Amino acid sequence: MEEQNSHTPATMQETLDPEDWDALRALGYRMIDDMLAHIETLRERPIWHPVPDESDAVFNAPVPLQPEGMEKAYADFKQHVLPYPVGNLHPRFWGWVMGNGTPFAAYSDFLAAALNTNVGGMHQSAYWVEVQVLNWFKELLGFPQSASGLLVSGCSIANLTALAVARNAQATWDLRKKGLTGAGRRLTLYTSNQVHSSIQRAVELLGLGSVALRLIDTDSSFRMDVVKLKLAIKSDIATGYQPFCIIGNVGTVNTGAVDDLHALADVAQEFKLWLHLDGAFGALVKLAPDAHHLVDGMERADSIAFDLHKWLHMPYDVGCVLVRDAAAHRATFALTPDYLQRDERGIAGKYPWLSDYGLQLSRGFRVLKVWMTIKAEGIDKFGRLIQQNIDQARYLVALIMQHPDLELLAPVAMNIVCFRYNPGGMTEVSLNKINDRLLYQLQQDDVAAPSSTRLDGTYALRVAITNHRSRIEDFDLLVAETVKRGTAIAQTITQERRKL
Amino acid sequence: MEEQNSHTPATMQETLDPEDWDALRALGYRMIDDMLAHIETLRERPIWHPVPDESDAVFNAPVPLQPEGMEKAYADFKQHVLPYPVGNLHPRFWGWVMGNGTPFAAYSDFLAAALNTNVGGMHQSAYWVEVQVLNWFKELLGFPQSASGLLVSGCSIANLTALAVARNAQATWDLRKKGLTGAGRRLTLYTSNQVHSSIQRAVELLGLGSVALRLIDTDSSFRMDVVKLKLAIKSDIATGYQPFCIIGNVGTVNTGAVDDLHALADVAQEFKLWLHLDGAFGALVKLAPDAHHLVDGMERADSIAFDLHKWLHMPYDVGCVLVRDAAAHRATFALTPDYLQRDERGIAGKYPWLSDYGLQLSRGFRVLKVWMTIKAEGIDKFGRLIQQNIDQARYLVALIMQHPDLELLAPVAMNIVCFRYNPGGMTEVSLNKINDRLLYQLQQDDVAAPSSTRLDGTYALRVAITNHRSRIEDFDLLVAETVKRGTAIAQTITQERRKL
Repeated sequence: MEEQNSHTPATMQETLDPEDWDALRALGYRMIDDMLAHIETLRERPIWHPVPDESDAVFNAPVPLQPEGMEKAYADFKQHVLPYPVGNLHPRFWGWVMGNGTPFAAYSDFLAAALNTNVGGMHQSAYWVEVQVLNWFKELLGFPQSASGLLVSGCSIANLTALAVARNAQATWDLRKKGLTGAGRRLTLYTSNQVHSSIQRAVELLGLGSVALRLIDTDSSFRMDVVKLKLAIKSDIATGYQPFCIIGNVGTVNTGAVDDLHALADVAQEFKLWLHLDGAFGALVKLAPDAHHLVDGMERADSIAFDLHKWLHMPYDVGCVLVRDAAAHRATFALTPDYLQRDERGIAGKYPWLSDYGLQLSRGFRVLKVWMTIKAEGIDKFGRLIQQNIDQARYLVALIMQHPDLELLAPVAMNIVCFRYNPGGMTEVSLNKINDRLLYQLQQDDVAAPSSTRLDGTYALRVAITNHRSRIEDFDLLVAETVKRGTAIAQTITQERRKL
Repeated sequence: MEEQNSHTPATMQETLDPEDWDALRALGYRMIDDMLAHIETLRERPIWHPVPDESDAVFNAPVPLQPEGMEKAYADFKQHVLPYPVGNLHPRFWGWVMGNGTPFAAYSDFLAAALNTNVGGMHQSAYWVEVQVLNWFKELLGFPQSASGLLVSGCSIANLTALAVARNAQATWDLRKKGLTGAGRRLTLYTSNQVHSSIQRAVELLGLGSVALRLIDTDSSFRMDVVKLKLAIKSDIATGYQPFCIIGNVGTVNTGAVDDLHALADVAQEFKLWLHLDGAFGALVKLAPDAHHLVDGMERADSIAFDLHKWLHMPYDVGCVLVRDAAAHRATFALTPDYLQRDERGIAGKYPWLSDYGLQLSRGFRVLKVWMTIKAEGIDKFGRLIQQNIDQARYLVALIMQHPDLELLAPVAMNIVCFRYNPGGMTEVSLNKINDRLLYQLQQDDVAAPSSTRLDGTYALRVAITNHRSRIEDFDLLVAETVKRGTAIAQTITQERRKL
């Protein structure tokens, strides 16, 4: 050996495996007990609580140099972390668009982490698990089996991945090599003004500039105005731009609106543009027995991005991208440097590398929970649960329509209900103020957790139902408490104004 | 209600929670037992086995419409998935650069998935866990506490994130809005010819074009030639380009070489360029008691990307990016659309949103395993384990140097050893052929799992030691078997040639 010191291998061979496997096993059992109890009793506990000040000392502590031990680490988790999540597992959490997860899928994440295989490439079972799940989704969403796809960490990355392929495939030059600078014509793309922020972020990241993203007006149902879309494309062509992509919304984040997908596909065909669909939560409506027609035309897209941690209730984070033209997909990402030699034999052998279809080289086994849970439950059940949420949204709409002090603020396409307390005779300013206070009362008093949005400036309570634990009586409670609290707040505000 | 059908909520309220919690608990215990037994007995089992043909039927099955049940799903996992991973948990797996994971970290991934909180934003404990871990790494790597950072799904995304910030911060125009097209001068960036493929992929994705990435020659230790770097920058400036970034390698993938970081920082300072460091595995050498000097100067970078699923042995996938200028970081990614209203109160209240620092809006709780494991083990232990691998590499080098039939092919900076069987008197073509066969024999006969690379065209066996389970005797075995098998293959090849 070259040198001898206190760290020579001969004198010290440490490992991260435990000394006492039995103690580790027992700790694992307790974690199972605790987390199942946590999930089983969700309904009886608060939706959300702010992180208490007494946790500050723990979260501000410097990095521990010496071991605190597994028991202490777990005790800190139970005391300072477990009681204070966002709350998206609760039966009356309807904020933003979040899924609930399932205990069995959480088990699968443990299996994946314990197996800890790197799913970037190589000859291994995890490759087939991911290929199988991708094939399932191609079939379920009407894409051909020849399409390609990838599991990613969420729809933001899925959108970025698809738009990168669209950009490179539609460019008339070798964009991978030459980049965007110096291109003859500027690339432009089109979507509705209801588009999700992840699309803007992707467009910016791709170097296209947010000005390249043309935001087309929507109709009264918040669907893209296809006449205006065509006008915008023609106008851009006439002034020297190169339109390359239309992005359709399959369930907008504000109201759940679905663009007219057949109309978008027709326009894309006419102008030879790439049609990408952002189906973050809406794409899976295709599985719903009585609502799948809402996403008709989805199967005509060139690419689609969707999440599995929303309406499929997989634990965070997992999304999926599908691309019709697998060659274009590979042509955007594939690279084979010296240290990733591929061969017919051995560990690196035989299989295509999944890292050739996306941004990550090392990749976690996030697909395992999808595979395990779909096998355990059957995909039909997920379709019924999506339908159940859509039906619950309809039920809520009916309650709102029946009540004179509540106002529905947007058509309900699927599972998102925007409404407000509005007893009549009040100014818009007052209504915005009342409903803003109302939202926080509902959240903080553990009634329910809607979020908010603005629709043309109007403050809306926004109930996005992607929740396998919600029951009919939860919506009865929401409506009753909204009216009760809205009335009280309106009185307070009126009194406040009199005092001024 | 608007309509009555077979899916009305009144008639059906399904959920993904189990009917029988006790059965689910018992299944969880069995998973713990099985996975701990799997990890405890790794050394006694093969490193890697090809996926058997009899698994085809399972992996080719169409999506199950009806439930197969949790027991069946788990049985399929145990039979068809568990026995056939890449093998990176094994004590003699040294291929590519992969970590081993730990059982306790796998538990933490279960906790994260069961809690299933969305760490994109909101007022919640998970926010503080991530902030704390980021603060720890700032301190450990010599970054100021005012720096920003984010946990991401791996170093590819970390590199992309940092280069996006560098690009936008260094552009002399509003690049987010206007994009790259039409910019006055073309942006260029600089790295060594040993750079990892993820950098090229990031540069392509950002729209800069791979030609913008200037690959600078390296010296005999595979470190960037700083004289040539300066010449390239000056030449580009003279011909109208806008250099904006230098990318230093802190541990190249081929040989583990570390660029002269102080020299790169000086050049960056001189030309006012952004210094980004790709420290995928090498950054954490900073923790090693007798090797931290190898990465001196790292603390002068503007940004650094590194993985935690490599030399910190976290389960896949988790990496980290740190950015010195937090404002520049935010300025690249922050967006606040209507449906993400932030306020002083309630669930969406008070805290900055982590999604303002990266590509994902919804984000998994991947930081939990990092927090739990560092608390349990203490960071010093990770430093000792990194040192242990570096010492093991030195030990292996000594064995190779001592043996007349083995040839070391590159200087060993830290933990990567490139060598070959070379008994002397053979052509380069024959040597490449012998060592190629040798690699697959080592892998397929369960001796050990190195990978391969080419160094200036020479086929090298590449042993990358990021393994907390490797022991000294594992390297003795590798050397003995390499010589034995190399000799046999050399004889076979000589005989084959005689027959021709």
